[in-house]
Amino acid sequence: MTGSVVALAGGVGGAKLALGLAKTLPSERLTIVVNTGDDEVFHGLHVSPDLDTVMYALAGLTNPQTGWGIADDSFAALSMLERYGAPTWFNLGDMDLATHVRRTELLKLDWTLSQVAQELCQSLGVRHPVVPMTDAKVSTIVETDEGDLSFQVYFVERQCQPVVRGIRFENAETAGMADGFLTALDCATGICFCPSNPFLSIAPILAVSGARERIASFSGTRVVVSPIVGGKALRGPAAKLLGELGHEVSCVGVARYYQGLCDVFVIDEMDRGYADTIRDLGMTVSVTSTVMDTDEDKATLATRVCCLMA
Amino acid sequence: MTGSVVALAGGVGGAKLALGLAKTLPSERLTIVVNTGDDEVFHGLHVSPDLDTVMYALAGLTNPQTGWGIADDSFAALSMLERYGAPTWFNLGDMDLATHVRRTELLKLDWTLSQVAQELCQSLGVRHPVVPMTDAKVSTIVETDEGDLSFQVYFVERQCQPVVRGIRFENAETAGMADGFLTALDCATGICFCPSNPFLSIAPILAVSGARERIASFSGTRVVVSPIVGGKALRGPAAKLLGELGHEVSCVGVARYYQGLCDVFVIDEMDRGYADTIRDLGMTVSVTSTVMDTDEDKATLATRVCCLMA
Repeated sequence: MTGSVVALAGGVGGAKLALGLAKTLPSERLTIVVNTGDDEVFHGLHVSPDLDTVMYALAGLTNPQTGWGIADDSFAALSMLERYGAPTWFNLGDMDLATHVRRTELLKLDWTLSQVAQELCQSLGVRHPVVPMTDAKVSTIVETDEGDLSFQVYFVERQCQPVVRGIRFENAETAGMADGFLTALDCATGICFCPSNPFLSIAPILAVSGARERIASFSGTRVVVSPIVGGKALRGPAAKLLGELGHEVSCVGVARYYQGLCDVFVIDEMDRGYADTIRDLGMTVSVTSTVMDTDEDKATLATRVCCLMA
Repeated sequence: MTGSVVALAGGVGGAKLALGLAKTLPSERLTIVVNTGDDEVFHGLHVSPDLDTVMYALAGLTNPQTGWGIADDSFAALSMLERYGAPTWFNLGDMDLATHVRRTELLKLDWTLSQVAQELCQSLGVRHPVVPMTDAKVSTIVETDEGDLSFQVYFVERQCQPVVRGIRFENAETAGMADGFLTALDCATGICFCPSNPFLSIAPILAVSGARERIASFSGTRVVVSPIVGGKALRGPAAKLLGELGHEVSCVGVARYYQGLCDVFVIDEMDRGYADTIRDLGMTVSVTSTVMDTDEDKATLATRVCCLMA
């Protein structure tokens, strides 16, 4: 392939393929656009969990045990915040805390979230552009049988236990796409939907004003990597949400969700039996190993994705 | 003695005697009023070095090597902030950082600095009131032969090396005394000037609107413990400043500085020879050991101070 790629990513699964793509494509041919609907203020600090998960992955700092946070981080500040009576259900390591302190400081100086992301990435030696979906505030609200919950309350504090009735993205319709997102799409010949949660990680990106339309009318190749393998999410609540929101709990349910936005749907070898059903949706199907345990797995899947765009 | 005491304190020396007083007097009979002219914003966080030094001392958390900061603190966040290109000449440990994060969060929620100090102290089990001199912003500016420097730049970054021509306290004349300072003075039968730097730690407290007048007309006993022993400051630039600002570099220079505000001047045994000269200034002189190496030293000196107020 000769063009450039826009990767849409959310949390851990997205960061894995984003890292694979970054190892496959030079920095001028890849832009990673990241969900910020999960952004939250903790202890007065602006936390951008998905931006950081991607940044730490590309910087080689990720905690391999969790897929997020920083390897060998300590938790002295959090233990002290607990002594001060602050709510500490959201885990923040000491090095990670520095990221949020620095981001908050720069935002207060009227930097945009895009500018902050660029600054932090450069400081950590990350050369590929990591761009927030928007510089405006968009908040993912999970509508559950226990009422509306902010994303982090649902995901971290409540461990995805409440039954979900719907999800909305507050302020998305007035939030504009970040400049880096727009210009990357202008130049791109391919879009890769990383295997992130469709409802919680990709949907907020699509909800930003203009994004869905731009991607629906995109003239290049749009590749979706299914986050559902063998009827289960490799991690997180994607399978549970498919069921609760009335979709088929399989890669077919995901494919239907992306109809109109996807040219090539990548499924795991375990799901080979679904290939014909997905082809009937009007998509090309690519069957490969999609489980990314090692950095080699990530690069191999990324190479496959790039070939599909050639 | 039966009354209550207001202790005026700044940094490490002040915190030592404050701890001694707290071990000597019950919480309802001691209020520690602390300099906040050194307060500074680092990384967007409100740092109150003197309030924290006193709080950590009373909480039993102080790093014994430095007399400030928290024992066994780590510096992971600071190392990360350095990677992000933030200026890191002001040392902030991870647990200490949590204090500044929490304070900043509560101030942003429109708590006063007094309320924050009370909340943090209570969380750490500190029962004696630790009160900022004012809830307004007062900034100590050190006028040097290299120009005006903020206190922390002079004290920490420049290690007190520039020659000082004067010191001013910006906004002090419009800043009101904190409520806790006012009410403690109303009830007090004694005031103790801890052996803090007269120019940098005590002068800002006296500069707050109304404070000097209240203390000058105070009807109880005002005891000053000299921070100069044998012509030297036990720590910090007090001796250097005495010279640069045209005072005699001895406990006599300090005594003259406090004329009109001091009834009893406490000097170290090493300075016994100055006793008559200081008595000639119209003060009672008390000679004792003023060096506080151990917690026992602190309590012994505090007991002596309390007896002088009886």
